[in-house]
Amino acid sequence: MHHRIPEIMLAVGLSEIDGSLITRKIPVPVPGDGEVLVKVAASPVNPSDLARIKHLPLSERKSFIAGIEGSGIIVGHGKGLLPGLWMGKRVACSAAKSNNGTWAEYMVTSAMACVPLPASISNEQGAMLLVNPMTAIAFLKIARSGNHKAIINTAAGSILGRMVEFLAARYRIPLIQIVRTEKQRELIASKGAEYVLNSSATNFESVLHDLAKKLYATIALDAVGGEMTRRLLLAVPYGSTVVVYGNFSGEQPLVDYRSMVTDNKKVSGFYLVNWLKENGMLNTLKCIMEARSMLKNHITIPVQAKFALDQVQMAVDMYKANMSGGKVLLVP
Amino acid sequence: MHHRIPEIMLAVGLSEIDGSLITRKIPVPVPGDGEVLVKVAASPVNPSDLARIKHLPLSERKSFIAGIEGSGIIVGHGKGLLPGLWMGKRVACSAAKSNNGTWAEYMVTSAMACVPLPASISNEQGAMLLVNPMTAIAFLKIARSGNHKAIINTAAGSILGRMVEFLAARYRIPLIQIVRTEKQRELIASKGAEYVLNSSATNFESVLHDLAKKLYATIALDAVGGEMTRRLLLAVPYGSTVVVYGNFSGEQPLVDYRSMVTDNKKVSGFYLVNWLKENGMLNTLKCIMEARSMLKNHITIPVQAKFALDQVQMAVDMYKANMSGGKVLLVP
Repeated sequence: MHHRIPEIMLAVGLSEIDGSLITRKIPVPVPGDGEVLVKVAASPVNPSDLARIKHLPLSERKSFIAGIEGSGIIVGHGKGLLPGLWMGKRVACSAAKSNNGTWAEYMVTSAMACVPLPASISNEQGAMLLVNPMTAIAFLKIARSGNHKAIINTAAGSILGRMVEFLAARYRIPLIQIVRTEKQRELIASKGAEYVLNSSATNFESVLHDLAKKLYATIALDAVGGEMTRRLLLAVPYGSTVVVYGNFSGEQPLVDYRSMVTDNKKVSGFYLVNWLKENGMLNTLKCIMEARSMLKNHITIPVQAKFALDQVQMAVDMYKANMSGGKVLLVP
Repeated sequence: MHHRIPEIMLAVGLSEIDGSLITRKIPVPVPGDGEVLVKVAASPVNPSDLARIKHLPLSERKSFIAGIEGSGIIVGHGKGLLPGLWMGKRVACSAAKSNNGTWAEYMVTSAMACVPLPASISNEQGAMLLVNPMTAIAFLKIARSGNHKAIINTAAGSILGRMVEFLAARYRIPLIQIVRTEKQRELIASKGAEYVLNSSATNFESVLHDLAKKLYATIALDAVGGEMTRRLLLAVPYGSTVVVYGNFSGEQPLVDYRSMVTDNKKVSGFYLVNWLKENGMLNTLKCIMEARSMLKNHITIPVQAKFALDQVQMAVDMYKANMSGGKVLLVP
């Protein structure tokens, strides 16, 4: 099957003036050595996309193309064994560089950043194979290898939150789930989750403190930033770690001197791409197998809406307004 | 030699109302099992004292006695081999509990928190044996065991800063020293230090960034907090750690989302007491030997003034006004 590649494509970037999302017509990129050209089928709006856009340095705005993950078909390739082998395959893929993202009609990425999709996983589900499932898998690996007895997770109503819950149950690690509203708390608790806290409740901090102490929850995963980071840091036991991985609040994480110095608590960050790099190819392959199995057999990620690339602002707005209502996809 | 122990003593605590320093008359404490009673000879005002006072939880104000380290003679003891053996000895000592500090005429502490002083170390120098020398020793151990190629230290004009410089030179680890004024920068540089930066200079951030990259300085020791923590976090290379150990600014350390998440940088705290506990008795003894040798043979800590316990506020004010001018001691 021969695919005719056009010269010009649509891609979502950022205005150099005010950082707003804009859909531009730009040249279709050309794959270099070890790279492939993916014709994108679908790509989700993830919290990690929003955080990345918000915190992008001004100097990178001009060449930036948004979108961390997606699915599509490989329609071109540069030199190398893997790029050649994967020509024509349907894949889940992630962006390797900040000037080539999945919120575009075509994306050049490393052949290593692509995973062939089995027929049982659709383009839509496949577009969400990497970031959320692999992040949840990474969290559980981090918790287990760090010998943490229990985990705290924020933004627990999100898709990622459901996956962390699924895996924590599988590995029998107690999970304290934090959501923002009583409605969300009831929803998750009604499905059988044991420890669900509403961060808007007046006694939230003392309940979290006591529960974290009782379960010895020494790792807290923070998708929120701002004041939430400090609240977690204050609540967790001596020597615990707060891992910042998202920025729902849009505010810089706040920390606490005494917690860090006297109580030996640490704050670190998690970024999937770095974590995969640091843990080697074999670990990446194992995670991909686990993610494929999770999507194939256990979890279907709900999709609440699909938008064209030039509707990207609407897509982002809808997602922000209802993050626990399912994913929003961009379909070029 | 028999020492008559009075029933009442002077001790520096905090006002429950506004947290200000007050000198109270309270009962002389009684040593329990494993503990000794020290008649305090001298105790310094350290930055760690000021940070501890500032960040003390309200609930601990009532029973708090300030002062982390000091020197004196052991005049009483509870049950145990060590307490009995050390009776009558002149020691450097540190506070084991927040309700028994060295800014007092007498202090009860663990016998393990005392180190006999050789005749060649005076009460005044001995009073400063533990916190600064041991902290500097700990920093170098942390840097070396973490395989950091170079170190950044803030508040480099302090006594601790001089000790870190001495030890970094001994272990041949490049040290980037940060001070607040051009005068301090010139003073330290004139004594032969290679990398001294003035954080008030307009190009400070870019110079620090480039130097940290060149030397691969992946650990930054932060005594300042507030905006300085964020400036360090932004300047250090991918994967680096900023270790907060003091709070000269009096402000909560600020962090940076992107540095932590995308650039895998971490923020942790250092508190000597925790570090010693976690690294075991043998490590503590080695550090004490190294500290004694450093004070005996290489470094004499300058003392700028001495005050009685009921002049504690003056002592603190003088120290704050000129931290690099030498230590201020309290002498009961």
